[in-house]
Formats: sequence, C-alpha cells, structure tokens
Amino acid sequence: MQIVMIQDKIVPFGEVPPVYFDRGMFFGDGVYEVMRSYDGKLFAFDEHMERFAHSLSGIQITGVDLDQVRSRVQRAFEAAGIPNALIYFHITRGSAPRNRVWSDDLEPNFFLSISELNDNGDDKAKGIAVSTFPDWRWKRCDIKSLNLLPNVLANTDAARKGCSEAIFVDEAGWITEGAGSAFFAVRGQTLQTTPLTANILPSITRKYTIKAGRNVGLKVVEESLTPELAASSDELCVASTTKDIIAVVKFDDKVIGDGKPGKYTKRMIEEFRLFVV
Amino acid sequence: MQIVMIQDKIVPFGEVPPVYFDRGMFFGDGVYEVMRSYDGKLFAFDEHMERFAHSLSGIQITGVDLDQVRSRVQRAFEAAGIPNALIYFHITRGSAPRNRVWSDDLEPNFFLSISELNDNGDDKAKGIAVSTFPDWRWKRCDIKSLNLLPNVLANTDAARKGCSEAIFVDEAGWITEGAGSAFFAVRGQTLQTTPLTANILPSITRKYTIKAGRNVGLKVVEESLTPELAASSDELCVASTTKDIIAVVKFDDKVIGDGKPGKYTKRMIEEFRLFVV
Repeated sequence: MQIVMIQDKIVPFGEVPPVYFDRGMFFGDGVYEVMRSYDGKLFAFDEHMERFAHSLSGIQITGVDLDQVRSRVQRAFEAAGIPNALIYFHITRGSAPRNRVWSDDLEPNFFLSISELNDNGDDKAKGIAVSTFPDWRWKRCDIKSLNLLPNVLANTDAARKGCSEAIFVDEAGWITEGAGSAFFAVRGQTLQTTPLTANILPSITRKYTIKAGRNVGLKVVEESLTPELAASSDELCVASTTKDIIAVVKFDDKVIGDGKPGKYTKRMIEEFRLFVV
Repeated sequence: MQIVMIQDKIVPFGEVPPVYFDRGMFFGDGVYEVMRSYDGKLFAFDEHMERFAHSLSGIQITGVDLDQVRSRVQRAFEAAGIPNALIYFHITRGSAPRNRVWSDDLEPNFFLSISELNDNGDDKAKGIAVSTFPDWRWKRCDIKSLNLLPNVLANTDAARKGCSEAIFVDEAGWITEGAGSAFFAVRGQTLQTTPLTANILPSITRKYTIKAGRNVGLKVVEESLTPELAASSDELCVASTTKDIIAVVKFDDKVIGDGKPGKYTKRMIEEFRLFVV
C-alpha cells in the first residue's frame, strides 16, 4: 500500500492527479523559456526555441517534438490576443513516483502561460535601483532550469530593499549577472559585461544589447566586473526579455552618474526598438 | 486576459487548479524531508523535524505550524500501516501566478507520500558500486530544498554505469558527499568524512554513523578526501536515511579492499541496528 497526503487530506495513491508526481515539483527536473511579443509580433522566437533545445539537451530530456512546442506557443499566443504578451513555458521530464533516477519512458509535461506585460514606462524613463546578492546558483547556469531558488531569494531580498533587480556576485567577488537579467556597465567609450564563460545564461537580450552598444559606437568588452568597478561606472544597465534594456541608476547605496539614465543607455534603448519592429 | 496551456489544451486562467501555479514547480521554492520507520517505529523523528525547521527558515518560509506537520506525518504513518516505511514530505511556499518575488500572504502547500521500503538486503550483504560526478549544486546544501536537478543528473549517470550512488566531487577536486548520502572512508583506525563546513547536508544518518564509528573503536576525522585517497582506502561506505550504512566495494573503476564489505563497516552496521530499536 502506498498513500499520499495533500494538505491535510489522505488520498489513495491511485487517485492522486499526476501533476502531484511531476518531477518538476520533486526535483525542478525541467527547463523553461520566457518570450515576449511587441505589438502582436513574437520577438526572437527562433532564438528562444534554439536555447530551449539546448536546455532540454543539457538535462537529457529527449523525445520532445520542438515543432509541436512551437505550434503550441503560436496557437496559445493567437488565442490570447494580447499584443504585448509575456509568454512563459516549461517542459518537465514527466510524472512518476519520486525517484532521482529517471526512467526513459516518461512522457514530458508541458505548461504555458500568457499574460499581459506590465507597462514599464516608468522604469524606462527613470531607471531602476539594484542590490547585490551572493551568487549561490548551481554550476550549469547555461541551462535554463526550474532550479530557481537562488534567484527567488535574491529577487525577494532586492524587492525588500526597494530594488527592482538583484545582481549576483560570486564567491571570488565578481559580478555574474542579474537574477533575471544580463548586466552591463558603460565606462568611457566601453560597454562591459560578463563573458559567457563565467557560468551565466546565454541571454538573448544580452546579445541584442551588445549589438545595440556597437551600433551606438561603444567598444564591447566581455570581462567580469567587481561591485566596486560597477559602482564607479559612468552608466549601468540590465537587459532582459521582458524589459529589454533598463538603466540602473542606483547600485546598492551608490548613485550612478547623476541618478538618471545615461546617454549611451538611452541610445541603446532607441537602437533596441529598431530590432523589434 | 490571461491564459494557460496544459499539454496541448488551452485552459482559462480561472479554471487552472492551483497546483499548476505551485512555486515548487516554477522555482523549486520549497523544502523536504525523508524519514523512515523500523518495524513500525519512526526513527529520529525529532531530528528530522528540527532539520526541516532549519530548511524552512533558510528559505524564509514562515508561518508553518510544525506541530501540525508532525501530527500529519503521524496520522499518515498510522493510516499507511507499513512497518518499514519510507516517508517523504515537502512544503512549498504556495501557489500564485509566476513571480520570483514572493508575497507574504501565500499559503504553504504540503505534500506527503508513504511507501514500503525496498529490502536492501543484497546491498547490505554485498556492498555497492559508486561513481563520481561533478558537484554542480548550489552553495546552500545545508538547506534540503527542492532544487535537486544536479542530484537527479548525478544519480541517473551512476545508474547508467551500473552504480547505486553518485559521489560528488567539487571544482577543487574534493569529495563533498553522495547525491543522496553521506560518504565515509576507513583508513587504518580512522573514519574520515567531509566536514559540515564544506557545503554538505547536515545528514542525520551521518551523525549516527560517526557515533557508530566511535563505538567500534575508530577515530573520527572530519576532513575532505580526494577521489584518489578514497579509492586507496581500506573501506568505504555511504550513509542515508533509507539504507543507513552500506559498504562501497567499488569506487569508479577501483575495487575497494577485497571487493567485499570491510570489517569496520560491518561492525558499524551492527552498531547502527542498536540505535533504531
């Protein structure tokens, strides 16, 4: 006999909905993507699907029909009818009684949600404050997995400090990236950001931000920064799918520049707009 | 409008069961415990509840009534009527639309399962093979969280190699612990294991194994081992809640001792039996 208790109710094993045995719940054994649309058009769909394939392969979830995922995303996006939509989806390895060793015959579970993106006009106009947090994450941040507890702890800590994003600092004292964004500093004519070799996500918006930086005449340097170097930069910004580029005007207790979005950051935001039309 | 798609079915937001919005699924935002009973008696219940409280506090899940958890475990255990039971339970921060920043008004979700423990008499008699795997885990392994993807990858890798457990080796080349166990070496009259300061779980069975080691006349040394040192040890063993002490007779490709459980390991297994009656 095997029994399950959900909240305070005992449920016979055979009557438990499979979602309660989702390996996503027991282990975070799944991967996800976040995409958005601008004015009814999905942005960088192919690149997000490529990264999703990399994540699936990274944790050896096989047998996923990526064309089917793609068509599900499109179908849901059309059904939602939201011009500026935030699209989240994950695939977990499947549902089974808890066992760290997986069985190859599991059927992956798919979940997607679409919601309207908050207008972040205020953040865009005024910039945001960020706070640092220790980078406690695992060593495979190239995989966009459901093991996000360090990010949850970091972002909630930031929110309690009145900040909109947390910036991870690793044990050696280097900034890696934001808990949900890539991180950039403008120093003179240089746009500096963590190299992809430093256990960060291969952020798609990072790639477009680098392109935007070059287009506005900045030299791009992929080298890690310390918090001290970041705080003494001319400008700082973060880049993420949902908000593209946002100026950082406060880093921990230090005001950056004159406390307003910097000129290069503003130009990069303009450049970015050209990518999404 | 906000919509959700589960597998290939679009579901209006209001009709999605809350379990699909469990933060355990989105982020692994929860903690767990595994306990067992011997012949109808729960073992080390208080210690597991203490560690669970530490884990909850470590990720700031507040407002959990631990006496209620305790009575749920007891009620389910009695209802199951399994003398040698494996008891798993987790608490997640609650269900809410996906947002890394949590809201303080969430109601934690409780899930528990009880199953019959497999008889591991064969492993006990013959010992097991283990294989090494890189320790990719986060930096807060003192918290027993649902972020277990590194353990899943390690244990599945081990199983494919015909091994029963994976032993984590960190970037500096030190063994930390097993993916689901504490790890011990017997070298001469010494029982050696990783110190708790080395980002490992404060394993309850580890504590009892140390006690068993002392009782059989071994000197206990809490110092990390390299794989080379481990492979050249007189005896090796792993310790976990579900299997207590099990001899390791093969470490990667290296046979340990004469390939059979060592004398001290066998004595420690006997000692351990005295703790559980």
